[in-house]
Amino acid sequence: MIMAPAGAKRNILERLDAGEIVIGDGGFVFALEKRGYVKAGPWTPEAAAEHPEAVRQLHREFLRAGSNVMQTFTFYASDDKLENRGNAQRFNGAQINEAACDLAREVANEGDAMVAGGVSQTPSYLSCKCEDEVKGVFKRQLDVFVKKNVDFMIAEYFEHVEEAEWAVQVLKTSGKPVCASLCIGPDGDLNGVSPGDCAVRLVKAGANIVGINCHFDPMTCVKTVKMMKEGVERAGLKAHYMVQPLAFHTPDCNCQGFIDLPEFPFGLEPRILTRWDMHKYAREAFNVGIRFIGGCCGFEPYHIRAVAEELATERGYLPAASEKHGNWGAGLEMHTKPWVRARARRDYWEELKPASGRPKCPSMSTPDSWGVTKGHADLMQHKEATSQEELKPLFEKAKTSH
Amino acid sequence: MIMAPAGAKRNILERLDAGEIVIGDGGFVFALEKRGYVKAGPWTPEAAAEHPEAVRQLHREFLRAGSNVMQTFTFYASDDKLENRGNAQRFNGAQINEAACDLAREVANEGDAMVAGGVSQTPSYLSCKCEDEVKGVFKRQLDVFVKKNVDFMIAEYFEHVEEAEWAVQVLKTSGKPVCASLCIGPDGDLNGVSPGDCAVRLVKAGANIVGINCHFDPMTCVKTVKMMKEGVERAGLKAHYMVQPLAFHTPDCNCQGFIDLPEFPFGLEPRILTRWDMHKYAREAFNVGIRFIGGCCGFEPYHIRAVAEELATERGYLPAASEKHGNWGAGLEMHTKPWVRARARRDYWEELKPASGRPKCPSMSTPDSWGVTKGHADLMQHKEATSQEELKPLFEKAKTSH
Amino acid sequence: MIMAPAGAKRNILERLDAGEIVIGDGGFVFALEKRGYVKAGPWTPEAAAEHPEAVRQLHREFLRAGSNVMQTFTFYASDDKLENRGNAQRFNGAQINEAACDLAREVANEGDAMVAGGVSQTPSYLSCKCEDEVKGVFKRQLDVFVKKNVDFMIAEYFEHVEEAEWAVQVLKTSGKPVCASLCIGPDGDLNGVSPGDCAVRLVKAGANIVGINCHFDPMTCVKTVKMMKEGVERAGLKAHYMVQPLAFHTPDCNCQGFIDLPEFPFGLEPRILTRWDMHKYAREAFNVGIRFIGGCCGFEPYHIRAVAEELATERGYLPAASEKHGNWGAGLEMHTKPWVRARARRDYWEELKPASGRPKCPSMSTPDSWGVTKGHADLMQHKEATSQEELKPLFEKAKTSH
Amino acid sequence: MIMAPAGAKRNILERLDAGEIVIGDGGFVFALEKRGYVKAGPWTPEAAAEHPEAVRQLHREFLRAGSNVMQTFTFYASDDKLENRGNAQRFNGAQINEAACDLAREVANEGDAMVAGGVSQTPSYLSCKCEDEVKGVFKRQLDVFVKKNVDFMIAEYFEHVEEAEWAVQVLKTSGKPVCASLCIGPDGDLNGVSPGDCAVRLVKAGANIVGINCHFDPMTCVKTVKMMKEGVERAGLKAHYMVQPLAFHTPDCNCQGFIDLPEFPFGLEPRILTRWDMHKYAREAFNVGIRFIGGCCGFEPYHIRAVAEELATERGYLPAASEKHGNWGAGLEMHTKPWVRARARRDYWEELKPASGRPKCPSMSTPDSWGVTKGHADLMQHKEATSQEELKPLFEKAKTSH
Repeated sequence: MIMAPAGAKRNILERLDAGEIVIGDGGFVFALEKRGYVKAGPWTPEAAAEHPEAVRQLHREFLRAGSNVMQTFTFYASDDKLENRGNAQRFNGAQINEAACDLAREVANEGDAMVAGGVSQTPSYLSCKCEDEVKGVFKRQLDVFVKKNVDFMIAEYFEHVEEAEWAVQVLKTSGKPVCASLCIGPDGDLNGVSPGDCAVRLVKAGANIVGINCHFDPMTCVKTVKMMKEGVERAGLKAHYMVQPLAFHTPDCNCQGFIDLPEFPFGLEPRILTRWDMHKYAREAFNVGIRFIGGCCGFEPYHIRAVAEELATERGYLPAASEKHGNWGAGLEMHTKPWVRARARRDYWEELKPASGRPKCPSMSTPDSWGVTKGHADLMQHKEATSQEELKPLFEKAKTSH
Repeated sequence: MIMAPAGAKRNILERLDAGEIVIGDGGFVFALEKRGYVKAGPWTPEAAAEHPEAVRQLHREFLRAGSNVMQTFTFYASDDKLENRGNAQRFNGAQINEAACDLAREVANEGDAMVAGGVSQTPSYLSCKCEDEVKGVFKRQLDVFVKKNVDFMIAEYFEHVEEAEWAVQVLKTSGKPVCASLCIGPDGDLNGVSPGDCAVRLVKAGANIVGINCHFDPMTCVKTVKMMKEGVERAGLKAHYMVQPLAFHTPDCNCQGFIDLPEFPFGLEPRILTRWDMHKYAREAFNVGIRFIGGCCGFEPYHIRAVAEELATERGYLPAASEKHGNWGAGLEMHTKPWVRARARRDYWEELKPASGRPKCPSMSTPDSWGVTKGHADLMQHKEATSQEELKPLFEKAKTSH
Repeated sequence: MIMAPAGAKRNILERLDAGEIVIGDGGFVFALEKRGYVKAGPWTPEAAAEHPEAVRQLHREFLRAGSNVMQTFTFYASDDKLENRGNAQRFNGAQINEAACDLAREVANEGDAMVAGGVSQTPSYLSCKCEDEVKGVFKRQLDVFVKKNVDFMIAEYFEHVEEAEWAVQVLKTSGKPVCASLCIGPDGDLNGVSPGDCAVRLVKAGANIVGINCHFDPMTCVKTVKMMKEGVERAGLKAHYMVQPLAFHTPDCNCQGFIDLPEFPFGLEPRILTRWDMHKYAREAFNVGIRFIGGCCGFEPYHIRAVAEELATERGYLPAASEKHGNWGAGLEMHTKPWVRARARRDYWEELKPASGRPKCPSMSTPDSWGVTKGHADLMQHKEATSQEELKPLFEKAKTSH
Repeated sequence: MIMAPAGAKRNILERLDAGEIVIGDGGFVFALEKRGYVKAGPWTPEAAAEHPEAVRQLHREFLRAGSNVMQTFTFYASDDKLENRGNAQRFNGAQINEAACDLAREVANEGDAMVAGGVSQTPSYLSCKCEDEVKGVFKRQLDVFVKKNVDFMIAEYFEHVEEAEWAVQVLKTSGKPVCASLCIGPDGDLNGVSPGDCAVRLVKAGANIVGINCHFDPMTCVKTVKMMKEGVERAGLKAHYMVQPLAFHTPDCNCQGFIDLPEFPFGLEPRILTRWDMHKYAREAFNVGIRFIGGCCGFEPYHIRAVAEELATERGYLPAASEKHGNWGAGLEMHTKPWVRARARRDYWEELKPASGRPKCPSMSTPDSWGVTKGHADLMQHKEATSQEELKPLFEKAKTSH
């Protein structure tokens, strides 16, 4: 059953319109941070130019795991963000964006994958630049994506629907399909706009596919996309849906997601989802009607493979990497110890409640956001500022950063 | 402070005799299983020949993280094991062993690393082949390592000191330095030989460096090596010491290690050590007098980097990958949220008790070994057998497998 | 500061109107089950007649701990319930109710306490008897309370606001103040009537004091009473408020409360609140505007004492039992070990996160209600029935039992 | 099967010699602290004189639960301790000891119970008084017990075997059977004397029954008594054995027991054993050969009832309180909800892993003993002292307090 699906490459909308499942990839910044190529804090993607072999290998692993989308490693690669991070880069923004496009295309061509150009939230929006300026930032990235002829665009990781609308409006000018993905939970964006209303605004702005990525665990993200879908349908509109959640369990986080958990970003290990958690996620996302199903921070190739294996019947094939993975642990049948062999079955792994091995650690934490809630936007902005100078624009506009 | 140490490559014994710290790499089978290149159950290393780019990249990441040792990816690559796994391989044992040597050498030459050829426990010993037969298996692997001129040899992952002694005796014929590493805990080997006695026997057999790898968490392994060291010193012998533990917390496992935990191998995520746990491990290993410090299953490049960062003062330099890692979370100083910036300090991470995000899961499990204890070797062997035919030799000799 | 407050006994409404805090007692069925006088399952209060010394002693302990209310031990003491339990009783319902009144009065007279007669949900309502029949059951209990001249009445532990309304209407005929307390959470009663609407209906039926008891942990109960208060105020009505929650942490229970937790009723120990948890509860209840503050299942005398100690400043005195309790652990100043003496301070106990000593147990459970939700009332009723005969009335009326 | 056993009262030694099981009672200081009659910190038993009704009721509950021993409530009732506690007592030591004897006798006569007079560790020993002085303290208590004609004597809660030997020597002069019970764990007494050696010394001093009480959880105490028994048998001596452990899970405490846990004494709730834990304890104690089986701090009457129910077949009868308790939860068969009725079975409760309902709390704590270990007796003593004056005697003799 392991085989590449027949047929020429088709547009993501053609695929989704035909009822196909499109599997995304995982979050590159976290995966490459663990491999030694991304710095936690700035989280910028200069590795695309500095260490292309590492980025290429990660693309290949996701392709092999079943991804149909090679997303360019251009997270936080807008000019304003790269400058803002202050480290004298050996490569400028255009070089990084171009290198990322080339790597994604190279690997996409090795299999059945499309290239998606990605843009994300900008410091310009946060520091209250006007609409034209913010759109200019997106436009400069888009120029590279158009030049490199990516297959479609993803505007992702937005906490304010307004900024996402602006991004969609820019990306639509390319004529390519556009996805819009927010990093919000069931409580809505940081200005309190509900998921349903956010989705309606994004569809009206021109997004073909709307959904959620990052910040929350899979089940929370799926629930939020469900709310978006209900909003869109109530408004009599049509769209496709996507979800690319964390690979961390976050039952205890507040409206700002895992950033506020005390474990972010260097103590999240005990929260990592198992492959079996991913089976449940993939099934739930499918049942809710989401057809573009991928991952964000924390996803490793084996997590995406689990998504692909759960949906193998619906897709009609297993991913290449399943040659190295028995279904539901079947590979253990070859283990030497009989009690390990006895684990080569679905119900064993479905029912397992895995221990942490950390008896002095709790199950849940208290988010560390200094009492910030949706109703205290001013306070939060105040706290985000680092100087009096920075404070000025914050009082003009109610926006928050990440 | 990031720099390559000066000087030509020296022998591992020259380094250790000079008081240097040698940092090992991490466990390839687990890391490559997550990347989609190794099958859990058989755990064989055919990827060295099948997917050299994936193995090369992992070597590079460990080199970048600070490893001084590129261990050939030849775990379970003895002929008898590869045959035993039953899958018609596209590559024979010699091809796999040779490919693994070439990859390790290629990457070692990119930095300050030595190549270590590795052999591990064999099915032949378990199925009670005579000493000559078992030694023949090791000899065939050694021929490849000699031909490829590795820098030194590691005999690792042995549960019975006797088999390790035989391996050491074979490896010594090469004239290269020999490490002997058992996968046992403080209770000793599966025949109940204490860590101290094991170490004495291995040193007498010719091992230059003795220690522990796999099966237990870092602190348990360090404790066991300490017992080995005390045994060697009591016997008036001399040796160097090594430790390459799991990157999983295993306070609840019994004498056979993490294999018997219900979470093995597909539900171990909540047990993964953080980088800060690794700092504590590296310090403790150093304090005990161990100078060859590395990792086994579960170690990712960032875990090795943490070891290298903890010991940067003693070694005199930081690893290359530290260009993407602020000391003790310093990179967070550039985070946008002030309460995340407040985490950019050592005491925050040292004191953090990370939550699992899994309130329905326990902290500790009950090992799943069907009541097997050291005193019930016969029973255990009986359970390991899968046919009457297989049972025969088990009654002749008291040995167990993994 | 330990002293009895001055002045003659006043009516509960006079006290509450004057802004006083009235402290209730704890749940007798659970406390006496542990002492060996109540049988878990039937939970009937025959001990009032069978073992008066045990009931009297428990009353005294609560009085000593600060209770202003001696609630008659008449839970489930309606005729229909006592018969339903099937055990040939040595005492009939009237005898039990009368004995309970005498005990409560005897102890109340030893201090500053009022006697409250109590009625609770009936099997008659559940088995769909008509309004007259159900009211008749309450009337027969009320006759005893009037004869024994209790100070006020409490209708408590109702899951359906309709049955509580009927109870209030009957109790009002006595001319005594009437409290109405439901055992529901924020999701409302078992027919989905919201806490706010329930409260409005109860006030309109004649209740002077409305609130919540049992089924949920203190913070959840306080939150639910807050919702009741908001409903009453929105409706332009006036009432006093009461809360008598569990002394068990129940973050994981569903709309039916702790009954559905797998630990009910014989494995709840790890959930028991500490005295410090009670301080937080008392403060929160006070802040929300609740002035009749007590406890239900799980409350032991020291829990009520903690409530009284937290509110000692507001009440103007400490309870008698505080002669055996230093404020915030001050008694430890006399401990022999210095590190135990160091615990004699408020912040130590406020910040303590007490360990369970049970590393193989989880923090939260999955409620065991066979998938029952508010929307599946029919299914639930079906499951509650034990014979076809019993099923009939269940299809006539949408009600559930406890 | 509920019935009082036939026959006249016999001596505890006659009973044990006949192979009978003798069930002890629970710890009065903790139980009465929760009821409001004992102050945590001093832990003195003046309630025997101040509030006899409360003490009498607790005796009755234990008798009803199956206790064959009414232990006089004379813990810490030596003159030196009562004075040391500094609170001007309304009753002197003799009055308290006499009142305690009268209460125990009164209730013992209501059933099949013996009265045991109890003495425990003294401040005099700790402050390095000579043997004669310490023995004088015990002698003054013994005079009361002889006058009141208790049935046998228990010297309990000793951390130094030497002090326990002195106590035994004094108590033997009465001609009554003498029990000697230490509050130590498998690591031995606070001077490092092993459990086996302690037991031998106590038997040689004249103790008829030796064992362990308090400080550790049931399984740890049973294990320690087993070590005592092995020591006595190895020495060719004979004795009977007793165990009266905590009702708290303490897997994480060090050699000094639960005193050092951060939860002691006001946050121990999550550690309380369930009745089902008590079944396992009673069976294990019986299997090890212990025949005097009771409880200490944390034991409530229902815990002792569980011990009596587990051993009902061996004893030939159930305790009186079992009339209010269905075997293994059988009372739930009368519950209204079918899924609660489904819990009326042994395997349900045996397998339950009860949740804490506290997701922000850990499973295990770190003992809070300021780094004190057996090897640092001087340091520990230094820390226990509160003034230079107090320090003097500590340097003369290596002893510690509690």
